Amino acid sequence: MVTVGIIGAGRIGKVHTASICNIVKNATIKTIADPFMNEETANWAKSMGVSNTTKDYKEILADPEIDAVLICSSTNTHSPISVEAIKAGKHVFCEKPIDHDVDKIKEVIDALKDSKVKYQVGFNRRFDHNFEAVRNAVAAGKIGDPHIIKVTSRDPEPPSAEYAAVSGGMFLDMTIHDFDMVRYLAGCDAEEIYVQSAVLVDPAIGEAGDVDTAVITIKMENGAIAVIDNSRKAAYGYDQRAEVFGSKGMVATTNDTESSAVLSTADGVTGEKPLYFFLERYMQSFAKEVNCFIQAIENNTDTPLGVLDGLKPVLMGIAAKKSVEEHRPVKISEITM
Amino acid sequence: MVTVGIIGAGRIGKVHTASICNIVKNATIKTIADPFMNEETANWAKSMGVSNTTKDYKEILADPEIDAVLICSSTNTHSPISVEAIKAGKHVFCEKPIDHDVDKIKEVIDALKDSKVKYQVGFNRRFDHNFEAVRNAVAAGKIGDPHIIKVTSRDPEPPSAEYAAVSGGMFLDMTIHDFDMVRYLAGCDAEEIYVQSAVLVDPAIGEAGDVDTAVITIKMENGAIAVIDNSRKAAYGYDQRAEVFGSKGMVATTNDTESSAVLSTADGVTGEKPLYFFLERYMQSFAKEVNCFIQAIENNTDTPLGVLDGLKPVLMGIAAKKSVEEHRPVKISEITM
Amino acid sequence: MVTVGIIGAGRIGKVHTASICNIVKNATIKTIADPFMNEETANWAKSMGVSNTTKDYKEILADPEIDAVLICSSTNTHSPISVEAIKAGKHVFCEKPIDHDVDKIKEVIDALKDSKVKYQVGFNRRFDHNFEAVRNAVAAGKIGDPHIIKVTSRDPEPPSAEYAAVSGGMFLDMTIHDFDMVRYLAGCDAEEIYVQSAVLVDPAIGEAGDVDTAVITIKMENGAIAVIDNSRKAAYGYDQRAEVFGSKGMVATTNDTESSAVLSTADGVTGEKPLYFFLERYMQSFAKEVNCFIQAIENNTDTPLGVLDGLKPVLMGIAAKKSVEEHRPVKISEITM
Amino acid sequence: MVTVGIIGAGRIGKVHTASICNIVKNATIKTIADPFMNEETANWAKSMGVSNTTKDYKEILADPEIDAVLICSSTNTHSPISVEAIKAGKHVFCEKPIDHDVDKIKEVIDALKDSKVKYQVGFNRRFDHNFEAVRNAVAAGKIGDPHIIKVTSRDPEPPSAEYAAVSGGMFLDMTIHDFDMVRYLAGCDAEEIYVQSAVLVDPAIGEAGDVDTAVITIKMENGAIAVIDNSRKAAYGYDQRAEVFGSKGMVATTNDTESSAVLSTADGVTGEKPLYFFLERYMQSFAKEVNCFIQAIENNTDTPLGVLDGLKPVLMGIAAKKSVEEHRPVKISEITM
Repeated sequence: MVTVGIIGAGRIGKVHTASICNIVKNATIKTIADPFMNEETANWAKSMGVSNTTKDYKEILADPEIDAVLICSSTNTHSPISVEAIKAGKHVFCEKPIDHDVDKIKEVIDALKDSKVKYQVGFNRRFDHNFEAVRNAVAAGKIGDPHIIKVTSRDPEPPSAEYAAVSGGMFLDMTIHDFDMVRYLAGCDAEEIYVQSAVLVDPAIGEAGDVDTAVITIKMENGAIAVIDNSRKAAYGYDQRAEVFGSKGMVATTNDTESSAVLSTADGVTGEKPLYFFLERYMQSFAKEVNCFIQAIENNTDTPLGVLDGLKPVLMGIAAKKSVEEHRPVKISEITM
Repeated sequence: MVTVGIIGAGRIGKVHTASICNIVKNATIKTIADPFMNEETANWAKSMGVSNTTKDYKEILADPEIDAVLICSSTNTHSPISVEAIKAGKHVFCEKPIDHDVDKIKEVIDALKDSKVKYQVGFNRRFDHNFEAVRNAVAAGKIGDPHIIKVTSRDPEPPSAEYAAVSGGMFLDMTIHDFDMVRYLAGCDAEEIYVQSAVLVDPAIGEAGDVDTAVITIKMENGAIAVIDNSRKAAYGYDQRAEVFGSKGMVATTNDTESSAVLSTADGVTGEKPLYFFLERYMQSFAKEVNCFIQAIENNTDTPLGVLDGLKPVLMGIAAKKSVEEHRPVKISEITM
Repeated sequence: MVTVGIIGAGRIGKVHTASICNIVKNATIKTIADPFMNEETANWAKSMGVSNTTKDYKEILADPEIDAVLICSSTNTHSPISVEAIKAGKHVFCEKPIDHDVDKIKEVIDALKDSKVKYQVGFNRRFDHNFEAVRNAVAAGKIGDPHIIKVTSRDPEPPSAEYAAVSGGMFLDMTIHDFDMVRYLAGCDAEEIYVQSAVLVDPAIGEAGDVDTAVITIKMENGAIAVIDNSRKAAYGYDQRAEVFGSKGMVATTNDTESSAVLSTADGVTGEKPLYFFLERYMQSFAKEVNCFIQAIENNTDTPLGVLDGLKPVLMGIAAKKSVEEHRPVKISEITM
Repeated sequence: MVTVGIIGAGRIGKVHTASICNIVKNATIKTIADPFMNEETANWAKSMGVSNTTKDYKEILADPEIDAVLICSSTNTHSPISVEAIKAGKHVFCEKPIDHDVDKIKEVIDALKDSKVKYQVGFNRRFDHNFEAVRNAVAAGKIGDPHIIKVTSRDPEPPSAEYAAVSGGMFLDMTIHDFDMVRYLAGCDAEEIYVQSAVLVDPAIGEAGDVDTAVITIKMENGAIAVIDNSRKAAYGYDQRAEVFGSKGMVATTNDTESSAVLSTADGVTGEKPLYFFLERYMQSFAKEVNCFIQAIENNTDTPLGVLDGLKPVLMGIAAKKSVEEHRPVKISEITM
């Protein structure tokens, strides 16, 4: 039985808490920390069976009964708390991104060098039933050598321009999941990135210095070409699809819907829209990723997504930004230098 | 908060226990009873957070702290325990079927007459996301007046001939769910049933006096014609579909799969088989039906499926058997007489 | 090269003329006869490259240069012209139905006994790409032994009540195609039929003594159970589907559409309605059936659909009517007696 | 009635001949010219009802009875014969591409300046039912402003390396259709192109100086971003899909298949592969494009695809080649200079 502390009781902290309480086996939550802990949040914690709550995450790190922490706090605290937790000997599940600053991620990498703790980064989409099926088909050789990898990733609603301004930009905030997906599906790293982007959804996003629409071409190390298409606003909902084409065939997914019901009338043949957003679409994957983290601790195996898997999509995001600024293909090796 | 006792810790008892512990809000299980209660089952109960276990369900009925029971014991005990529980003032969720014997069901009906307890019967498929979407479209008038209702219901594997012999026959064991579905989708009762059946899957089933394949035509009270097609063995897995056709259109569902991944190769374009069987396909619906039961208690409203909803599919099953025996259409009114 | 005469220049006569002129190889039309032949029709014939037109089909029968006739005249003339043509030594392609009167069909059967002419009846749906693929899968053993055969056949618009009154009734006018389809897909004859029918589309059809909605259950000679569902009016267009379920699996078709375009908006995910009616849906099959007829003549082989294939669906239609009248399952053998 | 001469009796010349003889109204073929005209080809012409055949296309240009020519000869002759035909006052339907050399296309443009003849270039895919439905949805505003346009275009088999060497390269030989498609779907011209390409199918194609796999990103003049993915070999057949995503939604197509039959067995749920190659997939579109050409002549309207529509995809192909050579985004305006 792994004893867990939750650091950060916002939306995703609550999701992980519910997963551990209801679905994940062999794990129990002892304490939930949040700087804004209040009565409402404490009551919610109690309703989940967690009676210990605190404003100070350091209580969790200091608690010898706690084996592992889930860092669900605000993005800018991910890397420093990761380092602290590693030093405290806690296994760490850290929400994505570890940081937007490569040097900060390197501090986490350094901290892990002297440590035996498990570290997992929260790219949950790898645990989605559809993308997992695509990856499994690729890994089983069913499509032969991958030649073209396509990821469609469109949000149902754009963020506010204020959020866009502080989010690190679309590539580090939204596309970062797709960068991870491309690495996952290809089974290798990216070599070079070219971005064609635009502001087509909301001019305020452009004024904030960001883009809202992009087609991103990526040369992968195994020779395959990946392409991601992003939009901050799909009128029909969250569009999350992948396709891998190779020497022996293709594997592709469609979106999930609430039901398979199709209505045929004089107006046409109409099915449901995709599930609205990530909480609807990816709920299962959140439980699955935490379950894998707990299993890695229990079985003393590697986590499925280590700290380097946290670093590399950030490098890709930085390369993407540079490609937009300099209007040219950018090698990942230019970023790591 | 509703305090629940579970009577019967077999497969479905365990499913409902997990639902209440993990998903259903405002309910807690105090005691689990099973005549074969042993250490393993008691340990499982503890792992779910239920420390009270017993071999004697009467302990549950006698416990004034327990508000409601879920009857998940063997079929022949459903009606007597229902009666006892009602008399003990417990709300009752009873697995289907209440009984194969109409007189026994009438005893439950009689017991309920003098009582204020809630009674719900476990036709879980009404709570399946696909069938609920079909029903909602019908109820919203999107297909106009229903004219033709089609239910396809095929199991992945036949039962043993021994089971078939004691199951009450395919119509009361398997088709009973489809009889309920037809009532649910049509929004009314059946009037007359005609069955064309055969033994095509396993001769031993025929030798045991049962059938394994059937097409069942039902005249509904609203004038619509329903048709159910059943097989005890679909090589590709559990086939569970419905279609309602009416004056303004049609609504139809397909099967659920583990993922939407489709593989295109030189051999064709291949998607996944339907989810294997009822535990895979209907897990969500089990939680949803129990949640509705708890809500009915909390809000003091009718349960969505009362004792008459438990009776009527049994009448339809008996009429279906009679239709096979007498090779003619049989009115439901012939059975109730 | 087979020289052909067309008898009847109505809608279907024109379809077959166009097929022969444009698509079918090794056939040429010498003469087109129609009792209402006028300048417009003659001009149309000329535009198709046919300069010979007449009001009297006997000219065609008397013409020694003509090898074969296509009988596309009104239904009541099919059998007498068939007999005349056979006696004149012409190969005959006869539109369905040969007749509604079994005795009249028997006269054609008798005429063929003393003759070496080829005879084909126009159940064009066997030549539809979708149904042919289903039949091929069944014949290749891909689904094992057939257990359940389902045919959905719904028209986009009901006929006028006047037409319904003289059409022979829905079973002989519309369902007759589905009776043939069931025989084709099962690869055997029907043994017994039970009909549950209703008047749900247009009360005037009921007043004219006909029905407009039906579910028809058929026991086939190979033990499979077939079920046809019919409606005279599907709001979304012509619904023409088939499914065959067997010991090893299932093969099923969906409707054809004008394009595969799917529109996703805030309102849902919408594809096109089925092709409107038989001319849109089955145009290819009309050419293919005539091509098979011409090939049978050229290669001196059996036609794919002989006179008995014309008779049997009529027997099934008569049995269906009797089932409605007598409210019981009716054996085909009761009709042939 | 438009009298037509066919120049070039190879594969596509035969397709257009059959279309005009069998499907296109108001057009007749007087003469077919081919430098390799022989008895077999002359017999084929006769079977199509065309008795005039010649080795010399100049006979057609000199024939005052001939109104229009279809230039279906080898690619290098398209532009000079176009110029000659225009000067001879013949309407011209010219197979794609007009030429790989922009200067040669400009000669055709110049010839048209002094002329009233109609000129149409053979980008047949615009007339495909699926792509036409996509374009119609876009033009009708159903998806709002286009933001992202995706075209998947993969051949079932690569050409020989010898062919690749003389074909002008993949971009001018194969992608040129997709460049036209992107212009058609966007309703505007391209501004800038970036290519990421590779040799993954056949090393011999690489040795011949060409590529066989590419992802091509295109900035369109209306601000939309288009992306084409190409492969010379899809194991599952000819993959031809398009998707347009915009401010109000998305419209997308799937591949066409021979039938809609789907087989469900213990091995999975399998549908048919896409139609094999362009003759199977695009046959209808060939007839439709020629029909539009004839109608433009008859009604004295513009052809749907003029000489500039022939030029622009060539400019895009040249820009694509330059992008590969210089490994950077290339503006179309760089090519026209």
